[in-house]
Amino acid sequence: MSSSSTQQNLSFGNYPIMQSKEKHEDIKFINIQDIGAELDGKEIWLRARIHDSRGKGKNCFICLRQRIYSVQGVLFVGGEITKEFVKFAQNISKESLVDVFGQITKTPSPVSSCTQSDVEIKIQKLFIVSASEPRLPLQMEDATRPDIGEETGGLAVVKLDTRLDNRILDLRTPTSQAIFKLQAAICEAFRSNLNKRGFIEIHTPKIISAASEGGANVFEVSYFKGSAYLAQSPQLYKQMAIAADFDKVYTIGAVFRAEDSNTHRHMTEFVGLDLEMAFKFHYHEAMLTVAELMCEIFAHLQKNFQPEIEAVRKQYPSEPFIFTEKPLIIQYSQAVSMLREAGVEQGDEEDLSTPNEKLLGRLVRERHSTDFYVLDKFPLAVRPFYTMPDPLDERYSNSYDMFMRGEEILSGAQRVHDPILLTERAKIHNIDLEKIRAYIDAFKYGCPPHAGGGIGLERVTMLFLGLGNIRLASLFPRDPKRITP
Amino acid sequence: MSSSSTQQNLSFGNYPIMQSKEKHEDIKFINIQDIGAELDGKEIWLRARIHDSRGKGKNCFICLRQRIYSVQGVLFVGGEITKEFVKFAQNISKESLVDVFGQITKTPSPVSSCTQSDVEIKIQKLFIVSASEPRLPLQMEDATRPDIGEETGGLAVVKLDTRLDNRILDLRTPTSQAIFKLQAAICEAFRSNLNKRGFIEIHTPKIISAASEGGANVFEVSYFKGSAYLAQSPQLYKQMAIAADFDKVYTIGAVFRAEDSNTHRHMTEFVGLDLEMAFKFHYHEAMLTVAELMCEIFAHLQKNFQPEIEAVRKQYPSEPFIFTEKPLIIQYSQAVSMLREAGVEQGDEEDLSTPNEKLLGRLVRERHSTDFYVLDKFPLAVRPFYTMPDPLDERYSNSYDMFMRGEEILSGAQRVHDPILLTERAKIHNIDLEKIRAYIDAFKYGCPPHAGGGIGLERVTMLFLGLGNIRLASLFPRDPKRITP
Repeated sequence: MSSSSTQQNLSFGNYPIMQSKEKHEDIKFINIQDIGAELDGKEIWLRARIHDSRGKGKNCFICLRQRIYSVQGVLFVGGEITKEFVKFAQNISKESLVDVFGQITKTPSPVSSCTQSDVEIKIQKLFIVSASEPRLPLQMEDATRPDIGEETGGLAVVKLDTRLDNRILDLRTPTSQAIFKLQAAICEAFRSNLNKRGFIEIHTPKIISAASEGGANVFEVSYFKGSAYLAQSPQLYKQMAIAADFDKVYTIGAVFRAEDSNTHRHMTEFVGLDLEMAFKFHYHEAMLTVAELMCEIFAHLQKNFQPEIEAVRKQYPSEPFIFTEKPLIIQYSQAVSMLREAGVEQGDEEDLSTPNEKLLGRLVRERHSTDFYVLDKFPLAVRPFYTMPDPLDERYSNSYDMFMRGEEILSGAQRVHDPILLTERAKIHNIDLEKIRAYIDAFKYGCPPHAGGGIGLERVTMLFLGLGNIRLASLFPRDPKRITP
Repeated sequence: MSSSSTQQNLSFGNYPIMQSKEKHEDIKFINIQDIGAELDGKEIWLRARIHDSRGKGKNCFICLRQRIYSVQGVLFVGGEITKEFVKFAQNISKESLVDVFGQITKTPSPVSSCTQSDVEIKIQKLFIVSASEPRLPLQMEDATRPDIGEETGGLAVVKLDTRLDNRILDLRTPTSQAIFKLQAAICEAFRSNLNKRGFIEIHTPKIISAASEGGANVFEVSYFKGSAYLAQSPQLYKQMAIAADFDKVYTIGAVFRAEDSNTHRHMTEFVGLDLEMAFKFHYHEAMLTVAELMCEIFAHLQKNFQPEIEAVRKQYPSEPFIFTEKPLIIQYSQAVSMLREAGVEQGDEEDLSTPNEKLLGRLVRERHSTDFYVLDKFPLAVRPFYTMPDPLDERYSNSYDMFMRGEEILSGAQRVHDPILLTERAKIHNIDLEKIRAYIDAFKYGCPPHAGGGIGLERVTMLFLGLGNIRLASLFPRDPKRITP
């Protein structure tokens, strides 16, 4: 029985496995999002999942779903519709993919359970394209329900590990679909803004011969008869691109951290949005480029992705993300004063602890009404050896972090581009010079002063949406305990 | 001495290390590409490399370079220009980065050694921003010279290993600058074309728990107390995205092959342009999407990147890349006949050897005037277990490769989306079912029929430009013998 004969002569049944036997170019499918009352009376084909169905005896109501859109299909015994047909429909497992032929019909009262609420489809034909197993490891309703503690009224909420173990189903929720649409938009905005500014996209190797940023926290790889490492960042390579006259570069790719951190914001593999640029006289040329880029990305998301933001907020309630038109820049020393005034201990040349970062975020929000700001001039002592020291105060450095909702999303700096100074700085940090020979040599043939930074894509996504756990912003997250699916 | 005082009171010298002491917002720099006779008489600042310089006694001619553009600077003793100044200029090492202040002056006869040939800069100030070591490991002229055997007339040509060992210098040549500008354009065109077609960008993990495509040729990673592997492709994850209702996805990222192949076209790490899409009835819906995408990319490159193509061709001569407006599709069985008619041995169900691939490329070019074509319906026996068998002839499969200049750039297929058939196919291939459990399970909850493919970015770049070695199309190539720089 070919799928063709199925469709022409039968009203319902299972397609054989879709093996590309025929092209059926005559059959046009409609998208659920395009179905509305203005199409009343029209006969259409659509391919969708069975989101839900109910019915007994002579009727069946099916909620048909495509990503974030849904429409109701109805079947009543009578005319061409046999008892067997209705029974077949009643028995299709949730999440099965089906082809439906039917007539769009205006409904007298809204169908509140579907996004296309002013119509339903009077089903005439119904075929299973790909059946789901009847027993699902999680229910889609439970996976979409907000976890608001006791207020769920005893209704089940899917736990994070169950979600991630069954990520394929979890990713089908409107919430997940919205998160990853937004994430794709962040990458797109990052690239198009930087292209406009004359940057060029590059690709840097992930397999490296020595640890790029000190020795700790790198994964080792068996490399034929020897071994290699996974890059913790494209740092060295984007700097080499600058030394090679690429002038302004960016790269989007996987970065790896062998840190045994099991927190809401650490992963062992994440997507880095990295950029580096030559500047003329002052690293603020680069720092402002990055900060303005971030503000433009936020504005773009809020302007063009409001439905996605709202969809996510239904499941994960959050305060709207606020930011200033011109990026707010705060000196590290000033942040230290703010923290001390708020009554916590914070040394002048000490790094920020996570609680102090969070507190600072709240203080800045109260005082400046922004969830995004730049912290400039970090203490030299807490930054990597390749960070350019402040020429005016030896305690500080030409380096900066950027924060969203009190959490770091970007770390950046002017880099030492002079091989002699770089060697001196490495010695002070007790770094084995032989291991970083290639890095230092990169600056021997003339290199423009340059600065840059690396942004964590999943952190930006998580913090913009107020998600609470970075794993929700990674398609297939990796942490010390999870490398599957 | 601050850099400010240097510029205001002195005519020449070394800047102190550029440490972002002052912003000098009053100094505007011009780009060399914007310098021309219409600016005759204008005084300008520019930052550029010393590409070359000559002069003795009282004069000095300097070729100033910015990426692919260059302009001549001149200095003569007299007036404000002291003997010491000219001597200082004569002694600056090639490849040093300098700031020049001077007057644009029309020249009576063209300066043939520079791209901006109708003007020169009468230098009034000259400062070293970042000096190069005087001894370069390779000469820029040698690195740019075409390797045309004896015809170089005894002039040196830089060997590939020397280039790659000193990649920072090699990447500064106009040829390299053009190659990577074109490569960035390929990625950009890939994404914008797919965005237009409703695809969404995703990011898939590189660290995986089991080999994604059979066990061979994967790199092993130490993962905390256990071990993991590097993904040979995003295959499984893009398929899971389809099962998770993303409908049409693409991803650009590193893929890893632990193959000990030391050829002109293999690397152990390369950039994959991968895509996967759900289709309605026939995998040709996807195959044609990819093939048309490729033709659009070629057309875009030829229309908008002619100067880059020409720049590369000066060093690496090649025939122009030709392609048909509508992609040419050839059946595998038809290719076998063509090869046999040409007098070589080729079995019906045998894979194509590299020489036969090359020959087929020449035959297709002769007959159809195209360097790009699709080979459809590969023998089932030579494809991976997850390839959908041809429903009409069990010897074949719903799979295809795409070729440029007789070399494969893409491999793709309809995938088996039914867990029962997938299990059967895996058994026939003697694959340990336990190892691919998560893969098979991905299809248990309803999955649309889908197809896709993976393109090697560096191969496309190499073959479009006729480069002859894939390492030239990778910023920092990785092969069994090279993981540095």
